[in-house]
Order: sequence, then C-alpha cells, then structure tokens
Amino acid sequence: VIPCLVPPIITLTTDFGLTDAYVGVMKGVILAIEPSARIVDISHQVTPQNIAEGSFLLLSAYPYFPADTIHVGVVDPGVGTSRAPLAIATPGGTFVGPDNGLFAPILVRQGLVGGDGRLLPSATAVELRDQAFRLPRVSSTFHGRDIFAPAAAHLAHGVQIEELGPRREIIELGSQGKYSRGPDGMIHGEIVHIDHFGNAISNIPAEALSPDSTVCAGGREIGPVVQTYQTNDVVALVGSAGLLEISVRNGSAREQLGLRVGDQVQAFAR
Amino acid sequence: VIPCLVPPIITLTTDFGLTDAYVGVMKGVILAIEPSARIVDISHQVTPQNIAEGSFLLLSAYPYFPADTIHVGVVDPGVGTSRAPLAIATPGGTFVGPDNGLFAPILVRQGLVGGDGRLLPSATAVELRDQAFRLPRVSSTFHGRDIFAPAAAHLAHGVQIEELGPRREIIELGSQGKYSRGPDGMIHGEIVHIDHFGNAISNIPAEALSPDSTVCAGGREIGPVVQTYQTNDVVALVGSAGLLEISVRNGSAREQLGLRVGDQVQAFAR
Amino acid sequence: VIPCLVPPIITLTTDFGLTDAYVGVMKGVILAIEPSARIVDISHQVTPQNIAEGSFLLLSAYPYFPADTIHVGVVDPGVGTSRAPLAIATPGGTFVGPDNGLFAPILVRQGLVGGDGRLLPSATAVELRDQAFRLPRVSSTFHGRDIFAPAAAHLAHGVQIEELGPRREIIELGSQGKYSRGPDGMIHGEIVHIDHFGNAISNIPAEALSPDSTVCAGGREIGPVVQTYQTNDVVALVGSAGLLEISVRNGSAREQLGLRVGDQVQAFAR
Repeated sequence: VIPCLVPPIITLTTDFGLTDAYVGVMKGVILAIEPSARIVDISHQVTPQNIAEGSFLLLSAYPYFPADTIHVGVVDPGVGTSRAPLAIATPGGTFVGPDNGLFAPILVRQGLVGGDGRLLPSATAVELRDQAFRLPRVSSTFHGRDIFAPAAAHLAHGVQIEELGPRREIIELGSQGKYSRGPDGMIHGEIVHIDHFGNAISNIPAEALSPDSTVCAGGREIGPVVQTYQTNDVVALVGSAGLLEISVRNGSAREQLGLRVGDQVQAFAR
Repeated sequence: VIPCLVPPIITLTTDFGLTDAYVGVMKGVILAIEPSARIVDISHQVTPQNIAEGSFLLLSAYPYFPADTIHVGVVDPGVGTSRAPLAIATPGGTFVGPDNGLFAPILVRQGLVGGDGRLLPSATAVELRDQAFRLPRVSSTFHGRDIFAPAAAHLAHGVQIEELGPRREIIELGSQGKYSRGPDGMIHGEIVHIDHFGNAISNIPAEALSPDSTVCAGGREIGPVVQTYQTNDVVALVGSAGLLEISVRNGSAREQLGLRVGDQVQAFAR
Repeated sequence: VIPCLVPPIITLTTDFGLTDAYVGVMKGVILAIEPSARIVDISHQVTPQNIAEGSFLLLSAYPYFPADTIHVGVVDPGVGTSRAPLAIATPGGTFVGPDNGLFAPILVRQGLVGGDGRLLPSATAVELRDQAFRLPRVSSTFHGRDIFAPAAAHLAHGVQIEELGPRREIIELGSQGKYSRGPDGMIHGEIVHIDHFGNAISNIPAEALSPDSTVCAGGREIGPVVQTYQTNDVVALVGSAGLLEISVRNGSAREQLGLRVGDQVQAFAR
C-alpha cells in the first residue's frame, strides 16, 4: 500500500471563541488551498486581545509538534492598523500571525531574537504582503481569514516563505512573557494563565529556579518548589509546560488564593 | 508521490454544544461510512433551537468552502414530527438537514428559491427517505446521528443525491433572515447573532445599504455606516460576513447598548 | 486513483476543557508518531475528575465508531499515584487510559468482565510500562500527553498491544455506572449526566425496564416510560444512548425539576 503524502500540520490559536463561525471559516479557507491539510486547534478561548495568554498557550504547545508544523496565532488587537502580518520560520516551527509580540516568547525560548527584536540568521521572517497569497478581498477586521489562513495553507502546499513577501529583520517583542531577576537574586514574574483546573501558571521557567527556591504569590508565601503533590494544600511546582505554577491537588489555586492573570509571583533562594 | 484521493469536506453546524458526545458520535458515524472524510466544525453553540442563528452562521461560512462541500446543519425543534429530512444540492454546496427554513437564507442568497419556496432548476432537493442511507434504527430524537450524518457521509463517498430519496420541489422558507424595505425607503431588520466579541450582527446585507445610510439599533441612532473603526465609540459597519453590524472597537456593543438577538435595526438614507 | 491507507481513528474524551492547550498538545504528540491519524473529540468538558460522567460519554459514543477505533479517556484524579496506565483491546474498540474504572461500564456492556474485575479471554489488557512507547520524559501531572497519547498513536501506527507492557488480568471496576434491583423488583439508579438541553440521563439501560415501568426522579413521580414526546410536560423515555432519561420537550428537565448529577432515579412495574 502506498502511504499518503501528508502536508505539514497547521495549528490554530485564537481569541475567536467557539460560538461563531470564524474558526470554521479559517479551516474552509485552508482546505480550499491545501485539501489534505491536517488542522489542529490549540485553543480559541484566549481571553479576547490578551496577547500574553495567547503567547503562553502557543509556547506550551509548539514543542510537541513536528518541526515542520505551521502555527497560526491570531490575538490581534491591532487588526486593521499598520501592524505587519508576518510569517516566521524557525527550527521549532513556522509561525504565522500579527507582529505584536505574540510569537516573541517562542523566539526567546529558542534563542532566535536579541533584546532589540533583531532576529538571528536561523530565523526567517517575512511580511505577508504578496496579494497572490491572500484572499482576493482583504477586510479590515478579519485577517485570520483573509491573510493568515491563506498564508499558512500556501506554506503547507509547498510555497516557500520568501515568496510571501519582503524580509523583516526586526520583530516587535511586546511586553509579555518577561520575568526579571533583582540585585538580591529574587526572580519577579507574573501569572500569565489560569487553567481549566484552577492552576495558576507563571512566566518563570524551571531553569531560572535554584534547587532551594521558595515561592510567593498573591501576597502569600507558598513555600518551596515541590516535585509532586504531597498534601491537599497549596503548592508551587514546575508544571507540564516547564513553568512555575501554583497548584492545589484536587482543588483550585484560583479559588483558594484568589489569583488572577497578571498577579505578581516571586521566587528566591533562602 | 501519488497524492491522496480526498473526498468532499463535510461541515457540521448544530445546537448540540460541546459538553455531550453528540457531535463526536456524528463524526464516528460519518467516518465509519467514509473513512477519509475531512470534517470541519462550524459551530455547535447555536442557541438551542434558534433556527435564525444557525442560518446566519452557515450563511457566513459556506462561501469560504469549496463548492463540493457538504454542509450538515442540525437545529431541529421539530425532530420526531413530520417535518422532512432533506439534502439540497446547489452551485455553492450541498446542504443536509431538516426542512425548517435553516437553509432558506443560503438559497435566497444564491437566487435559487422563489417567495413561495419553489426551487429553481439549478437546485436539487430530495427527501432523505431511503433506508439504505440511514442508520438501521432511527430514533425520534437524534436525526443528526441517524439520518443526516449518514446521508452526508454517503454523499461524500460518491452516492448521487437522487439515490437518497424522492425529489422535493418546494422547501419550507421559515421566517428567519428576512429584512424589509418600507415605503419611505427605510430598511427594517433585526439582530440575528451576537458574536464572541460582543458585535451585534443584523440580517441587513451590504448591498441593501446606500452610501449615505444611517443606522439605528436598540432605540438609539448609531450614525452612518463607516468603513473602519475610527474611535472607541459605537459604530455601524459592514462586518466580515457582508452584513451590517453594530460594533465597538476594543469593546462590546452587547454590553454598551444592551443589544440582544431579535432586537430591531433600521437603516435609512438621510 | 489509489485510495489512502487510513490508520484507525483515535478518539479523545477528557476533563481538560477547551481553554488550555492540553488537548492540542495531545494531538501534536499523536500526529508526530502517526502523521495520518484521524482524531475525533468526544468531549473535553467532563466535570473535572468525574469518572462516572466520563464513562457515560464514552459508553454512549463508542458503539458508533468502527471496531478498530482507539478510544483515549483521561479522567484521572489519581495521576501521579500508583494507579496503572492501561490499554484494553475489546471486540468493540481499544481503550487507553487510567485503571480507575473509567472503562468498566464499557466492559460490562460487552460482557467482558466479572464482578471481581477479572477480564474474560476476549479482552486483552496491558499496563503501559514500556518506555519506548512513552514520551522520553514522563511528568507526574500529564499522563494524557506523556503516556496515553503516545500509546494510542503507536497502536494506530501498527504496534501490537502486547508490545506496550505486561498483561493485566484484573481491572479496577470503580463504583460508577451501577444500578441495582431491589427485592420488590424496583430498579435503583442515578443521574450520571445532564446534557446541553437539560435532559437528565440515568444509568438505567432500556433492557432493565419492563413495558409498563413507571419512573420517579428527584423525589417526584415522572410517570410511565413513553415512546415519544407527547406534551410539553416532564417525561421519562429511553434516550439516544439506550438509557432512561428525564426530559422536557422544548424545555429543560434540569431547570423544571432541579435535577443534578448523582440524584436518585427509580423505575418499577405497577
């Protein structure tokens, strides 16, 4: 038996929700261009226009996909303004969406971007300007349908990224996904997402922690970073995305601590 | 490499929600009949038994799919009564679901139906009566699983529409999706859907508006139809589905105006 | 044209919700191992850690899928403890998930398990212990990604179930899904799920009822089991999953009776 030729996977991460036809329409546009596309939803429940949360969800998901996957992200408060539409090819995947910092944490994680937003040579970014790879009529409100879905589908179909438009050397970094280390060694981060189970996930990666780190969140000392759940109490641990999170076994850290997206988190070695 | 033979896309639009197994079951039924089917969800969050909203979502989505796509729509307050199950082939796609007006706006948009519900020759409708293309046991509560999913899958598998059952010349138009023009030229429509971002979408298409149309909604004058967002104020514009909508940049028209599905909208040339 | 080689379907049933990237990540893991996998969501909205509800949803869905389908179920309050991860091959499908009773009602329905949890020869269970068929690093919190998704994908790719780990003769039955018959012939069951439309579904199968059964639920007599909706009143009928349910035509049994998951249901012959 001859196995199928399977084009790259296309993932979708948006703040469109699942009530409307928006996501289905993007899939129709993709399949009309590349009929064999395999499309995977990451999440469409990003808090509307919350770029940091969209970044976190993509950051936690992309490492589990093949490196030739095309990840479309549409959290785009600036749609219809002058912000550029981009495609960025990296060793860890190709990312298609607005130039508003949404993909910056992924580039940082891969070491592909400087503090000034300048890309290293192993990343290739282009502005999605060529009309041939957009829908014929581009609206001012729905670039997910008119620009990003077609670009992803054409890439999946075999179009080279350079054909989509002119090169970009610098990308917008945005402000999300950044943690800092104070002169006293204390790490300052924040809650970027609260998951379905009430776990509060910070932007502090495991590699920033020392073996004896103690964690504070929501104005309360949580305690040392533990390896597994020990009790039903509130604990700090490294979650499945490699990030420090505040969690309660069989309970909700959101409810027990009143944590919200944007709240401060600190970690320090005693 | 030999590319795959890809059968037509099947889309699903229902009021089944995503909590239950209903949608997954329909997909199982489809894939058991046509293992290579590509299935796309449009929405399963139609307000229960709200035919007008289901119509709107399908109307806004179907033009972005290839013309051989099979669209299954199940918003079916009359399931288990004598309303007929239909398949309707049109130049813009094939539609499978109950004969309750759900597909009428799509047929109107394509100019395929008269005011009496009589179909033009370029549309072919059949009643899904042949037992061979239903599940062996048909329940009185879940025709999505027992009649509509199998019919769509058999069509995707290559069965001709005429094989599914006897021809129907007339379809139910329902009352949804209709706007009217008064003797003074004023257009009277209504809100048919409020999207995830709080935009309130009417049933008045762009082509019904004049260049200087002014809009009222929720008992308030919104102002002229604008091309893009200018301010953070409430505006009337033509949305991505080609319909007049009431919108607030970075805000919610639903919240600011208290708009609900069914509210009146007027447009008039000053 | 040469048709595609299509590997078995993989279904997913979890309590992960749709806000997070968890489900998307599982799909990435699956597609990285078996690029042609066809993945179908049953539901990700199981009440967190409610094994009985997860069981019901899978029980109502699996009969509609081909018998070579691989069903992944992750409702797993014991993740990170000593409960075993399993794959169970049955004539009605292969089931992959935790050994916590989630699949017990499906084995009971197929007559494959004794009251002591011992499997009959026509079911084959293995513990998912072979490292080669897990992700390289297994977390203590996300076996859906690290153990269950890879096992399902390897099975879809052609790995034999015996390769995944050592045989298990006995499985955990859990307490869900059980109804009983009293000495007076009265059947005692409970509500296991309330669907999107407000129908309250019990764990009492049609075959346990007699033609003249009368039903009580929520401390109220509902009346005899009817074949179809007659009025807009509350009725007891056999729903699309073959289970007794309490339902209101064009209304919500949840709202009218205040029924909740876990409430008692009785059926008796007058």
